[in-house]
Amino acid sequence: MKQYTINELQDFVSTEIASVRKRLQQNSPSALYLPIDYSLEMGGKRIRPLLLLISYNLFSDRMEMALPVAAAIEVFHNFTLLHDDIMDKAEVRRNRPTVHKKFSENNAILSGDVMAFLSYRCLLETALKKQHEILALFTRTAIEVCEGQQLDMDFENRIDVTESEYLEMIKLKTAVLLACSLKAGALAAEADDETAGLLYDFGLNLGLAFQLQDDLLDSFGDPAVFGKKIGGDIGANKKTFLLIKALEKADEPAKSVLMKWLKTDSAEEEKVKAVLEIYKQLNIQAITQLKIDEYFKNCSGILNTLKIEAAKKENLRAISNIMLNRVF
Amino acid sequence: MKQYTINELQDFVSTEIASVRKRLQQNSPSALYLPIDYSLEMGGKRIRPLLLLISYNLFSDRMEMALPVAAAIEVFHNFTLLHDDIMDKAEVRRNRPTVHKKFSENNAILSGDVMAFLSYRCLLETALKKQHEILALFTRTAIEVCEGQQLDMDFENRIDVTESEYLEMIKLKTAVLLACSLKAGALAAEADDETAGLLYDFGLNLGLAFQLQDDLLDSFGDPAVFGKKIGGDIGANKKTFLLIKALEKADEPAKSVLMKWLKTDSAEEEKVKAVLEIYKQLNIQAITQLKIDEYFKNCSGILNTLKIEAAKKENLRAISNIMLNRVF
Repeated sequence: MKQYTINELQDFVSTEIASVRKRLQQNSPSALYLPIDYSLEMGGKRIRPLLLLISYNLFSDRMEMALPVAAAIEVFHNFTLLHDDIMDKAEVRRNRPTVHKKFSENNAILSGDVMAFLSYRCLLETALKKQHEILALFTRTAIEVCEGQQLDMDFENRIDVTESEYLEMIKLKTAVLLACSLKAGALAAEADDETAGLLYDFGLNLGLAFQLQDDLLDSFGDPAVFGKKIGGDIGANKKTFLLIKALEKADEPAKSVLMKWLKTDSAEEEKVKAVLEIYKQLNIQAITQLKIDEYFKNCSGILNTLKIEAAKKENLRAISNIMLNRVF
Repeated sequence: MKQYTINELQDFVSTEIASVRKRLQQNSPSALYLPIDYSLEMGGKRIRPLLLLISYNLFSDRMEMALPVAAAIEVFHNFTLLHDDIMDKAEVRRNRPTVHKKFSENNAILSGDVMAFLSYRCLLETALKKQHEILALFTRTAIEVCEGQQLDMDFENRIDVTESEYLEMIKLKTAVLLACSLKAGALAAEADDETAGLLYDFGLNLGLAFQLQDDLLDSFGDPAVFGKKIGGDIGANKKTFLLIKALEKADEPAKSVLMKWLKTDSAEEEKVKAVLEIYKQLNIQAITQLKIDEYFKNCSGILNTLKIEAAKKENLRAISNIMLNRVF
């Protein structure tokens, strides 16, 4: 059985998405399908389909069988971006106007809707033995992703979000889809339930670490590498792990400074600077890094448990390191 | 095999929707699930799940097997209402504020999304032999419904919509879901492909007649029976069958009056009166009625072709008559 490199698997993903786009470009009405093409053209890292193929390739090298499942996950992920960007009033994504800005809100709603159904069409067109299990997993995950987005919005109006509530939110909003990708890859290759379940858990831990790292980089990243302005979350009063920990650890004076800033809507430099100063005093960077390490260690532990020969596990190790910005 | 009356089948639908609501009421986050409950509570005629059960009962009386499919179609239909009402800026539905007015646009988007996935969950939980065919039919239909909504929005900015373009739009936006309901009922009962196909065609024709009738009632209905203000479509410059036919038949002076009114956004009484006057002069009511009759005759023809004993066809005949407001 051939084991592909991550680069080769990325090529499979790119080719498959290109072919999905080509098919959709011929569809009408064009006002419905153009925003979908625009959204898929934007690219992004295609982490989810890549995880799916890495997982699949642990058990099979008949990659063409898994490609529609990988495409389904990527199309679904982009559907969530279209709708989330409306809800979050985000104007820019991947350095381009978001779909609702480039086209209209109505376009982003309706093209998003059709993307959700197109992802089911991709899944239904496969001839996989475990297609039904994949559909059920996908559907459960999609519902959970919506629940995560709702929790995220609920948190906007709260200042008493707890660590465990926050972790549950990012699990639903981000981690379950990574977990679903890995498990769906395993199911597509007819892996046994125990192994598929371990890959799901690996994805959950990876997803949690990944999101916490994203939180961390938003406050402490190198702007050149991060690609976004530092302090965006602070400006937007996002209830991140960092803020929740800071509110938990702060003494009364520091807490009242944080609360004062949380009441201002502006994203002014002074606010970012003041909040970052408190984060530094409270050692929030190290605390967050410890939590990331904890999830990363969970990933390693699960990887060791997996009954797969060691050499095959290298792609999973490599992609985790890439996703968590570690030296490989 | 027991043949249920339409009233009995309606009770099956009500009980099933009530049980779906009860299950969802226990879900969290409540901000996500409350609008769904509100939407399903609003009721409406539940035509689609009823058609599904009527069709199913032609072949089977094990109704419990078909109920999740009926629920899926109703939940899907309500999902489209949530999103369409945002896109159409509709403020009232079934005499109550629409979901985006009662809650918020974000709620209507996200709760709508989760409803789409909940409808798949209903379908996936069935143990039907033809589950995969139902899923594929449902998915194709969902995509078509989105395409129909897009065409409807495209038509807002056009004055040159042709009759055949209009019929294609209402086919996609309205008729395919009625057709899908009937075919899904047949597939759930393991009817053969030919019969299921005929029921699909019956649904298409019924749906086209139903939508044309809706257009007609909007201009010529009895306000007390119709439940909406007469002339809503005229006020909103909707490209209905009536308007398209009027533009087609009008001489130059009448056409220029129509065009003048089409350029005004207001829904003033004077406009409705003037356009109705032209409709009357051009005999638009009778022309539309002829088209409805044509589709209705197609329904009858298909019903005669169906290889099912005559007595069993009575429910299909009855529901068509009810939907098209005919004396039974």
